[in-house]
Amino acid sequence: MMVVDTVAGLMKATEEARSDGRRVGLVPTMGALHPGHLSLLRRSVQDDDTVVATVFVNPLQFAAGEDLASYPRDLRRDLVLADEAGVDYLFVPTCEEMYSQPPLITIGVAALSQRLEGCYRPGHFEGVAMVIAKLFAMVGRCRAYFGEKDYQQLCLVRRLAADLSFPVEVVGCPTVRHPDGLALSSRNVRLSPTERVAAPVIHRALVAGRHAVEAGRCDPAVVSQVMADVMSGEPLADLEYAEAADPGDLRTPDRLAGEVRLLAAARIGAVRLIDNLAAVFGQPRADCEGRSHSQRRPHPEGQLCDGG
Amino acid sequence: MMVVDTVAGLMKATEEARSDGRRVGLVPTMGALHPGHLSLLRRSVQDDDTVVATVFVNPLQFAAGEDLASYPRDLRRDLVLADEAGVDYLFVPTCEEMYSQPPLITIGVAALSQRLEGCYRPGHFEGVAMVIAKLFAMVGRCRAYFGEKDYQQLCLVRRLAADLSFPVEVVGCPTVRHPDGLALSSRNVRLSPTERVAAPVIHRALVAGRHAVEAGRCDPAVVSQVMADVMSGEPLADLEYAEAADPGDLRTPDRLAGEVRLLAAARIGAVRLIDNLAAVFGQPRADCEGRSHSQRRPHPEGQLCDGG
Repeated sequence: MMVVDTVAGLMKATEEARSDGRRVGLVPTMGALHPGHLSLLRRSVQDDDTVVATVFVNPLQFAAGEDLASYPRDLRRDLVLADEAGVDYLFVPTCEEMYSQPPLITIGVAALSQRLEGCYRPGHFEGVAMVIAKLFAMVGRCRAYFGEKDYQQLCLVRRLAADLSFPVEVVGCPTVRHPDGLALSSRNVRLSPTERVAAPVIHRALVAGRHAVEAGRCDPAVVSQVMADVMSGEPLADLEYAEAADPGDLRTPDRLAGEVRLLAAARIGAVRLIDNLAAVFGQPRADCEGRSHSQRRPHPEGQLCDGG
Repeated sequence: MMVVDTVAGLMKATEEARSDGRRVGLVPTMGALHPGHLSLLRRSVQDDDTVVATVFVNPLQFAAGEDLASYPRDLRRDLVLADEAGVDYLFVPTCEEMYSQPPLITIGVAALSQRLEGCYRPGHFEGVAMVIAKLFAMVGRCRAYFGEKDYQQLCLVRRLAADLSFPVEVVGCPTVRHPDGLALSSRNVRLSPTERVAAPVIHRALVAGRHAVEAGRCDPAVVSQVMADVMSGEPLADLEYAEAADPGDLRTPDRLAGEVRLLAAARIGAVRLIDNLAAVFGQPRADCEGRSHSQRRPHPEGQLCDGG
């Protein structure tokens, strides 16, 4: 694995790969790699000829007062994990290399960010869009892998690639979970032991919401309340939102129908965590996250397939 | 010359060119090609191995009430001229091909558009930024040629390429003028014979402004007034702005010093025209548009070198 710390070096590496007829995969991360990231890296190693991973804690996507300073960083470990996963180039730029001057051009994402995370993290998605647009521009034609864990981000990145005509195929990958349902997140390391025990309540709330959708509850407010009720049973959890939304544009429909995405955010102590699940209205199914639509099939109601 | 009308076709053409080791040049236009455009095409033909020109009247950069419907179009003639100039690929997409769905992602250019043209054409530069970002994303590594005639656009495009990390070298090319000083513009064809005679007043005003700067007038308001006075001598001209600005960020300094850009816009009858000139404070020079800084040299005061 080669470590690249300049934009010019990244461009050279990917251009040379493509001129050799190699397909490029891109896995953007903020480091502190966990098995969720590793599943993205493995997917790219499997599907692409040259795999580029990036480790950059992008200051633009942290709002004032957020956890930029305390965001987990462990580059030495990331280097080992990326190398072991089969990454060819690890792009680790400094902030000065990424933003040699404060940008005057901005990416507007208002139509996609005025809900859910966007309400709680002003400027977050504009910052995400900026850094991803830059990476897409640098890397050029590629497949780019993003976790469904950050579902609103995935929707935004898909739209960014399409609207700006980047030759980038955005691939969404299933959320990886602990056996108790907690979605893997770099921020989990900051949970105290007690908070770690409490944290899976977010997933339990989403599963309850999914059961409600599958059972035919068509009022989004009712489904939200089902999730909020589960969350309120955990004193350490401070709910920010729990919503049933259209999986494409993340708007809340008047009545649920067809595919639904359940999304939740909560603070567990001082750590803000997010998670989401897919559901199909009136239709229990085997695996709500990892399969494409055509592969989905109904399954005995109540079976939990996302854990592990 | 090959005519390409799909995004996929454009990407394929430029990717194949680069994989053959050819350097790609890009000349984005809205068609109605005139010798100003042809000078950009010739420059690219001279400097690049594969020349891509685009003809697309971008609806996003026309504000409501502007001249989108009446903007001159003559594709048959453009095809001949581009072919004769040595263009390899002419990209002529439909609006549906460029914008297959209304974009939810926007490009914000507020820091660059709140002056001059931006005040008179709300949304114009956002639309320009969107279409140019898309073309840069489609074409990938290239040199891209833009006329100094649209100077604020040139500043914006330079910044767009830098801030979004496109592997694009933006090349600004000198304004081409009629012998009487009128800058070539596709919109000139819509001037009546009387208006055509009146139109060079914009250039004369800019030259007067340049003389004032060269003569050491350091107050931007005074230089603006010098230009406005010239313009007011022409009854058919309706001045919108005439300003002396910093050539980098286009802000008006408190006192002029060093390099200055003079920019003006006026309506000649129903046709809105813009133009601009370079000047150096206290320093007459030989050629204020076509030379790089290192090539500039003083010359006898009062000599007009931009015409012709």
